[in-house]
Amino acid sequence: MDKSTLFSYYNRNGDTKMRIKNLIGDRFKERPSDCVIDSHALMVRGGYMKYVANGIYSLYPPAKRITKKIENIIREEMDAIDGQEVMFPVVLPGSLWDKSGRYDSVGEELLRFKDRTGSRMVLGMTHEEAAVHLVKEYANSYAKYPFMIYQIQTKFRDEARPRAGLIRVREFTMKDAYSFHTSQEDLEDYYDKCYKAYHRIFARCGVPEVVAVASDSGMMGGNVSHEYMLLTPVGEDSIAICKECDYRANMEAAESIIENEPKIGMAELTEVETKGATSIEEVSAFLKVPTDHTCKAVVYQKNSDDSYVVVFIRGDLDINEAKLTKLIGDNIHPAVITEDCGLVAGFIGPKGITENAKVLFDASLKGMDNLVVGANKVDYHMTGFNMERDYGSVEYVDVAKIIEGGICPCCGKKSITISRGIEVGNIFQLGTKYSKSMDLTYLDEKGESQHAIMGCYGIGVGRLAASVCEVRRDDFGPIWPITIAPWEVHLCLLRVDDEEAKAFADDLYEKMQNSGLEVIYDDRNVRPGAMFADADLLGAPIRVIVGPKNLKENLVEIVTRDKSISLKVNKEETIAKVMEIKAQLMEEINKNV
Amino acid sequence: MDKSTLFSYYNRNGDTKMRIKNLIGDRFKERPSDCVIDSHALMVRGGYMKYVANGIYSLYPPAKRITKKIENIIREEMDAIDGQEVMFPVVLPGSLWDKSGRYDSVGEELLRFKDRTGSRMVLGMTHEEAAVHLVKEYANSYAKYPFMIYQIQTKFRDEARPRAGLIRVREFTMKDAYSFHTSQEDLEDYYDKCYKAYHRIFARCGVPEVVAVASDSGMMGGNVSHEYMLLTPVGEDSIAICKECDYRANMEAAESIIENEPKIGMAELTEVETKGATSIEEVSAFLKVPTDHTCKAVVYQKNSDDSYVVVFIRGDLDINEAKLTKLIGDNIHPAVITEDCGLVAGFIGPKGITENAKVLFDASLKGMDNLVVGANKVDYHMTGFNMERDYGSVEYVDVAKIIEGGICPCCGKKSITISRGIEVGNIFQLGTKYSKSMDLTYLDEKGESQHAIMGCYGIGVGRLAASVCEVRRDDFGPIWPITIAPWEVHLCLLRVDDEEAKAFADDLYEKMQNSGLEVIYDDRNVRPGAMFADADLLGAPIRVIVGPKNLKENLVEIVTRDKSISLKVNKEETIAKVMEIKAQLMEEINKNV
Repeated sequence: MDKSTLFSYYNRNGDTKMRIKNLIGDRFKERPSDCVIDSHALMVRGGYMKYVANGIYSLYPPAKRITKKIENIIREEMDAIDGQEVMFPVVLPGSLWDKSGRYDSVGEELLRFKDRTGSRMVLGMTHEEAAVHLVKEYANSYAKYPFMIYQIQTKFRDEARPRAGLIRVREFTMKDAYSFHTSQEDLEDYYDKCYKAYHRIFARCGVPEVVAVASDSGMMGGNVSHEYMLLTPVGEDSIAICKECDYRANMEAAESIIENEPKIGMAELTEVETKGATSIEEVSAFLKVPTDHTCKAVVYQKNSDDSYVVVFIRGDLDINEAKLTKLIGDNIHPAVITEDCGLVAGFIGPKGITENAKVLFDASLKGMDNLVVGANKVDYHMTGFNMERDYGSVEYVDVAKIIEGGICPCCGKKSITISRGIEVGNIFQLGTKYSKSMDLTYLDEKGESQHAIMGCYGIGVGRLAASVCEVRRDDFGPIWPITIAPWEVHLCLLRVDDEEAKAFADDLYEKMQNSGLEVIYDDRNVRPGAMFADADLLGAPIRVIVGPKNLKENLVEIVTRDKSISLKVNKEETIAKVMEIKAQLMEEINKNV
Repeated sequence: MDKSTLFSYYNRNGDTKMRIKNLIGDRFKERPSDCVIDSHALMVRGGYMKYVANGIYSLYPPAKRITKKIENIIREEMDAIDGQEVMFPVVLPGSLWDKSGRYDSVGEELLRFKDRTGSRMVLGMTHEEAAVHLVKEYANSYAKYPFMIYQIQTKFRDEARPRAGLIRVREFTMKDAYSFHTSQEDLEDYYDKCYKAYHRIFARCGVPEVVAVASDSGMMGGNVSHEYMLLTPVGEDSIAICKECDYRANMEAAESIIENEPKIGMAELTEVETKGATSIEEVSAFLKVPTDHTCKAVVYQKNSDDSYVVVFIRGDLDINEAKLTKLIGDNIHPAVITEDCGLVAGFIGPKGITENAKVLFDASLKGMDNLVVGANKVDYHMTGFNMERDYGSVEYVDVAKIIEGGICPCCGKKSITISRGIEVGNIFQLGTKYSKSMDLTYLDEKGESQHAIMGCYGIGVGRLAASVCEVRRDDFGPIWPITIAPWEVHLCLLRVDDEEAKAFADDLYEKMQNSGLEVIYDDRNVRPGAMFADADLLGAPIRVIVGPKNLKENLVEIVTRDKSISLKVNKEETIAKVMEIKAQLMEEINKNV
């Protein structure tokens, strides 16, 4: 390269120039057979990523450029809410995770190994422990609070089933932030700031439609939390959304409300033989009773001591195991019913059930009269079961999965729909879970020792890039929002052998760069079809096409990747028009921020 | 924060503002007892880093800001030599390292473990395998060459003895680049470009004195390679430098040249009893002969088959084991001499040595007459040994450590000095080592299959930051070059309780930010001594001091961290003067680039 220009095109967001003939990575037409979702197929076909191992990918320059831009947007928004960027290790000592208890409590997704000295190490999949460790000595007085620290870094989570390209991987780049407070109110204030910053981040990345849904905190602990969902049929999460009001929650957090209408008069409790009928469907068919008039028993065992948990629920509904886990405060697994455990598989009912099992009643049974229940006796059920009369007063719990058409916990209408979405971010009010287990204390105004109150806030960078691709694409490739596109402009020279056209395009390429535009230039000697197919796969929002035919009429063609703009301009006005379209595309993004 | 300013101070290189009272991390006076070198002590005392585990650190915001700036400089220089930024995984499948043979050949510093499915994985410590994997299908034709790809990412190297803070760690951020060529000439051309880019990088980071030294390629393979050394007495590498010419090489690559002057006439070969004298010093004292008239035997065993290697060398010199390893093409360890191996420990000599051992003669023995050598017999040595006469003609090898005052292999003068340095970068001509082992081939112009020729180029980001600190500091803290300083300006308000001073400083803080300056503001209610001690530890190159006393005379004090500038300016001219000093400091950097 020319040394005189060495320092002229430096750009903090990366190089602004690229000739497609030099761009490493291949683009091709055939959909790879192992790609289940479209965005994954397009990102492989477009030369964005390469499979290295299950759930582990290398990124080619276009994907690296996209993720860098997303990272910069996140960084700006985190700085704007007074975040301080730090860096935690990827490899952490097991002893640090002992302190929080998570070395033992987290499943196999936490990759544990030993270093050369035999010390237990883990690969960081989240950094609450490291965050508390970093600030433990610093945050010793109320005057130091509140503060927030964040990092953008590689994480590893040994997923059992990686899928969908960059959407569910084992190794990923994540922004994780941790805030520290001296009161719940202050945490809530900050949580709200972060809640809004997240909406700005997604809007700036071109997906303002991302919705925040109330969620269960899972292994993170704490109470209030939200997931940011990009709704798409290929998402692996289910979300309950009310058509009538603002209510949105993930399935784990969505309260299931069932209103049962009592029948007129109670029937007599009667034992009936139901030979061989063990499933609800079989019993229901055998007794000619709808499943929603039956009471199903679902049996689990606690992971900690294998003790039994029997959950009774209306026969037509299912258990949400995340709700159940949270309720009983222990991990569970489907029960193995042994001969001596006292449970009669297929015929379990409330009345006379063994005292060896913990018994729970889902709220869906509340107000039900004349239920069909198991008789705790092989081949027998009971009909006409009435809870209060035949069992006693019980405290109902909410462990049922919310259903399509169910009652909205917010507005009370039967307006719940179930949608699918990709979780592109999450925020948690952690409370004192980690400050207590890891002993992070400060002296308050009165000189008394208190535990810090924490929040944490995550966004998966690669997953966000792939999710945007999933919802911003056509059959031919991604349609990248201008804010995160690998290049803003894709310049196509249709006839490299036409001297005049080549001279004009070369000059335009230089001048567009000098105008601060990020340009990828296709000056290969290939057919227009192949050229446009590659441009579609690279998804730059603005395409400039230089060809001898148009040039003869002094014209250059400009089209946007989303086809909303397609025009010819006087060749001298090309850059001005491109700048105008860029400003327009930016404006469309910014109006949602 | 004020929402109206939300988007006004975005800065791609991170937030420009910070109040020291909000900055997380502690600064303190006492030197931590576990810090051996000064830069490590200062970076702990200054709140830059925190120990997490042996060789593993978290970074506080000041260090994160420094490393981000270094990364941006590296990125710009890599882009300037047509590098394409990519991203490889941190966690790599063992099978990929099988292909290069390094899964087995690299020592324990390669951390190997198994994932949940039992698959062998490694933590990436260098990415030649991943780089070849990424481009294998793409780089199938000569037309695709040359190209260079690079990444800036976390690496892990399970060092046995991490030391010196960020200088030798187990987890580190590194820029690693890989270039691919179709001819040795093209590799050499590109290598030269990269060689120069590296000098620009170090100059832009404020350490233009970094020198490139010829080096041994070690486990990377290949022939020509250079290390970039920042000379400092605390460096762990030794470098041979000629005082008279440009010659510089690390100890492994420096040829040892010894000129022996033959005595007049050969003595008779005589066996003498040297009872109990086994070391060269003992034999030399016993026989009253200088050590440089003796021939020492140093015995190793090959790691692969434990076979013996005996190296004879002039008694006053030492073996350089890296040279020896390279020469014999196998790793070695000091020998355990068993009773039946045929070697007589303490009395080994060339004449009559067992045929079980491979025997090498260092060039330092060439031209020596009348040597004292071992007699291969307990308690006996020989005097008057003359190689050709008493042993035969031998091929001498170069495995000696070059010495202070030794002969320069370049200019031939006795002008070698041995300096210590920190290796802050390295570049290698790899040749076809990886393309052959991993079968990276392309079709040349004639349609014939060829192996690609590679180069690789590394810089440790955290190590560079710590190294700059080591050579740019005083007793009170680092003196960061303006290009990588965490903040450019440190604003001290001496009396926060003085309303006028506070109003002026607050306003100055805002205005300096608006002028694009990166400012850290100390408006705490602390004594000037404590304030300046913190400013020294944070090392911003320009300090602005606002106090009521000076303000009464309409003055503000400006001093540079290196004390080269200290002046008072009319308060209205503060920003203009700061900008002028910044430009001056930038100019001092740029003149070396």
